[in-house]
Amino acid sequence: MLKETLQKIVPLDQAWRAKARQRCDQLIKPVGSLGKLETYYIQLSAIQQTLAPRADRRAVVVFSGDHGVIAEDVAVCPQTVTLQQTENFVRGYTGVCAIAKQAGAKVFPVDIAVNGEVAIEGVIDKKIAYGSNNIVTGPAMTRQQALTAVQIGIDMASQIAADGYNIMATGEMGICNTTPSAAILAVLTGLDPAEVTGMGANLDDVRVRHKIEVVRTAIDLNKPDKTDAIDMLSKIGGYEIAAMTGAFLGAAANGVAIVVDGFIATVSALLAVQLAPAVKDYLIPSHKSNEKGAMIASQLLGLEPPLDMNMRLGEGSGAALMFNIVDAACYMGKEMITFDEAGIGVV
Amino acid sequence: MLKETLQKIVPLDQAWRAKARQRCDQLIKPVGSLGKLETYYIQLSAIQQTLAPRADRRAVVVFSGDHGVIAEDVAVCPQTVTLQQTENFVRGYTGVCAIAKQAGAKVFPVDIAVNGEVAIEGVIDKKIAYGSNNIVTGPAMTRQQALTAVQIGIDMASQIAADGYNIMATGEMGICNTTPSAAILAVLTGLDPAEVTGMGANLDDVRVRHKIEVVRTAIDLNKPDKTDAIDMLSKIGGYEIAAMTGAFLGAAANGVAIVVDGFIATVSALLAVQLAPAVKDYLIPSHKSNEKGAMIASQLLGLEPPLDMNMRLGEGSGAALMFNIVDAACYMGKEMITFDEAGIGVV
Repeated sequence: MLKETLQKIVPLDQAWRAKARQRCDQLIKPVGSLGKLETYYIQLSAIQQTLAPRADRRAVVVFSGDHGVIAEDVAVCPQTVTLQQTENFVRGYTGVCAIAKQAGAKVFPVDIAVNGEVAIEGVIDKKIAYGSNNIVTGPAMTRQQALTAVQIGIDMASQIAADGYNIMATGEMGICNTTPSAAILAVLTGLDPAEVTGMGANLDDVRVRHKIEVVRTAIDLNKPDKTDAIDMLSKIGGYEIAAMTGAFLGAAANGVAIVVDGFIATVSALLAVQLAPAVKDYLIPSHKSNEKGAMIASQLLGLEPPLDMNMRLGEGSGAALMFNIVDAACYMGKEMITFDEAGIGVV
Repeated sequence: MLKETLQKIVPLDQAWRAKARQRCDQLIKPVGSLGKLETYYIQLSAIQQTLAPRADRRAVVVFSGDHGVIAEDVAVCPQTVTLQQTENFVRGYTGVCAIAKQAGAKVFPVDIAVNGEVAIEGVIDKKIAYGSNNIVTGPAMTRQQALTAVQIGIDMASQIAADGYNIMATGEMGICNTTPSAAILAVLTGLDPAEVTGMGANLDDVRVRHKIEVVRTAIDLNKPDKTDAIDMLSKIGGYEIAAMTGAFLGAAANGVAIVVDGFIATVSALLAVQLAPAVKDYLIPSHKSNEKGAMIASQLLGLEPPLDMNMRLGEGSGAALMFNIVDAACYMGKEMITFDEAGIGVV
């Protein structure tokens, strides 16, 4: 099934890109002066194959999962916060909910591996396990479980696309999930864990140094294959990370733009691009996360996040902040007129 | 009259800042993890003296003026574009109009010194002159004219505040107005004109070198006093630059937050802060303009623009892109709950 999805992911049509670039250059402004708004307009035009693309139906799919590596004392929060916040996504109380509400975006919370029973209507139940295994004592999950998690991400994105959303984002909730994300990024880049491991939710320096050693041990023990995304996900990843990888694949396979959130989502996107390089054409960056490693991951992906907000919350909160900006790019394309139409000579 | 306005501009209440900071720190997220959203929430709470500030009634006031220095061949566009674009603000065809429409913001176009007759209803007529004088042959305008332009900016912002807008921005249209702006910034900073003079609307390198010499000549000839904002505006400034300076003063005097656009607006804001340092408390940054000198001006003002869009259009276009982000900060404050309310221990 994964193979079928990967085959559906095709690079954007260069002819549509060229047509959209041409329109941008003819609008009544100095050529290139609207910068990244022009970039997003061209990208969205090519994705949607129209010179009047839309970004007005918006969804954020948030995957929640727990992590066995919490036993290594790499989190400031108790693990129960994953469950509590997953329920709070339904209630609308969390950061991503507030930002999504402002943007008129719908939040889809998904329980993929919460260590506990969700006791509220509205969380989509896709539970595979009660959290991953501790990656310093063995693999996070089996290869089959990783594939299942990726498929759930694909299915969620496909359903969102089928429901008529024209832009989506993905986020996560999972106490201590910066640890597996740092491990994956270290393996992908060959960098020392110290280069890509950060403070997460406010770890102090001493505990960050410990976290770095946890990441190092997990890699040394599990020996993940850096050319095999599923191997990395199963050995040193996590369920919500795998599901986000699937969401990127699913969005691209269905021809819908997907906004990349901060550190963890960017690592997931890197794995999706490893599985299908054309996924990159469907990614829209959002914010420069303050989490260490985030900029390395963005650069590896070739993304230049336009928002410099000092945010590091996760949940898809930074991505949700991008919806209105992408929409402004659409407005640029449809509201502005060309020099010819305005009777002004092209400059 | 200017003196009266300056006296009305007071620093923000530290007690309100503290209360808003406290609420931020109690919301269900790691302390500080929403970064600049928290900053804007605290600032807006203190400006509006409430823990539920609003940024839902939005206005952009755009001042249009021409410049005698166009005779020195420092523009790629003909001067008539100022008039044409001023009329296009009413028609909704320009960059700022598209972005403002997406944000649900009203655009107020003001003719302060367009070199021609506006032939369309909807442009606010505050014409002082048919453009400034050429600053390489003498002062841009008289001191009285500069004061009048500043007062018009104050009056416009005051009217917008009286109409119930809770956030505003200011922008400009004026072919070749990066030239006087660079001159003012060079004088303010003591930097060589080459350090602060950029490509404007796509000047090539040869013409930028010429523009630098024009800026140098204007400063050498007029000898503006770097401690006197009105002297700088009258000798090497421009009408729309002076009016924007007034708009910043007027917004602050009326207790309304005002978003700073790119290069030219940031230079205007610097002059407003020179006249009344507490203006700074009411300024919200927007984008890192690609125009040379813009980051220098922002740093001088102590602003860290969160948007990195490679934009350099002017018109208030970058500022209009900030409205939804500031609104997201308001949503954070009102939609999120505290750890106590959620029954989660504070982390």
